[in-house]
Amino acid sequence: MTVAGEFEVANQQYVAGFDKADLPMPPGRKVFVLTCMDARLDPAKFLGLEEGHAHVYRNAGGRAVEALRSLIISQQALGTREVVVIHHTDCGMLLIDEEDFRATVKENTGEDVSHISFLNIKDLRDSVKSDVEFLKKNAAVLDVPISGYIFDVKTGKINKIV
Amino acid sequence: MTVAGEFEVANQQYVAGFDKADLPMPPGRKVFVLTCMDARLDPAKFLGLEEGHAHVYRNAGGRAVEALRSLIISQQALGTREVVVIHHTDCGMLLIDEEDFRATVKENTGEDVSHISFLNIKDLRDSVKSDVEFLKKNAAVLDVPISGYIFDVKTGKINKIV
Repeated sequence: MTVAGEFEVANQQYVAGFDKADLPMPPGRKVFVLTCMDARLDPAKFLGLEEGHAHVYRNAGGRAVEALRSLIISQQALGTREVVVIHHTDCGMLLIDEEDFRATVKENTGEDVSHISFLNIKDLRDSVKSDVEFLKKNAAVLDVPISGYIFDVKTGKINKIV
Repeated sequence: MTVAGEFEVANQQYVAGFDKADLPMPPGRKVFVLTCMDARLDPAKFLGLEEGHAHVYRNAGGRAVEALRSLIISQQALGTREVVVIHHTDCGMLLIDEEDFRATVKENTGEDVSHISFLNIKDLRDSVKSDVEFLKKNAAVLDVPISGYIFDVKTGKINKIV
């Protein structure tokens, strides 16, 4: 069975207990969370989020430059008024060297991906700070509270950086 | 208090019960989930995911073109071998007209965002099909099972489209 098939089975239990049919589209807590797609992170659990609370945007590394489109939509169409950026320890993006990685992709797929910046991370504190700074300086982003954290995969704790 | 402050308080409870210190970085179920940032969606809950299981990538609409960087990293650096695309009913991207939205952003922030494609959605079945197709046809994406679903915000059910 594919994992998708397993998802369909697991989903039946969620449907059986579902009581969230009347939630409005705009996030109730008016917050946009930007974090990594890493499998060890469950932002709803570690931030105490329930369905309806927050936009949760996730990509490889939790990088801000790629989140801009979604954040503008979140603020301008759906009323969020705070941003929380969360990177994490032991992130895969710390292991990626852009040139080596492009060579790996070329070797494994035959495809030239030299046009893609993989947004690797060299230092976690720097990546959090620079991503928060990027959003604060972007004129298309509203002047709202933007904070930055590092989630520790060994403890489950979010540690404030900025 | 900011929502970030509330997150710090809620996080203490997660830390107190944390028992996931030894999870490896690669997703245990080797799957990449691509879905929307919508507040009403909690993919871990509606798919039966636990920490360590899956890469969960989320953006406005769950659009594939923006997920390409992360998917390549997921497959080439962290070994995922299946993709599940999940869009959802009542998506905010169905309400966005690209030209009108750019005008709104210009009016509210003064910023010209005509260089950004907001990737709006006109028909949900089409968006799921075309995003799955986009990934299947992309030479940098491995030839793995890719399926597409629509999550129903009124029932919690995932309905298979492709």
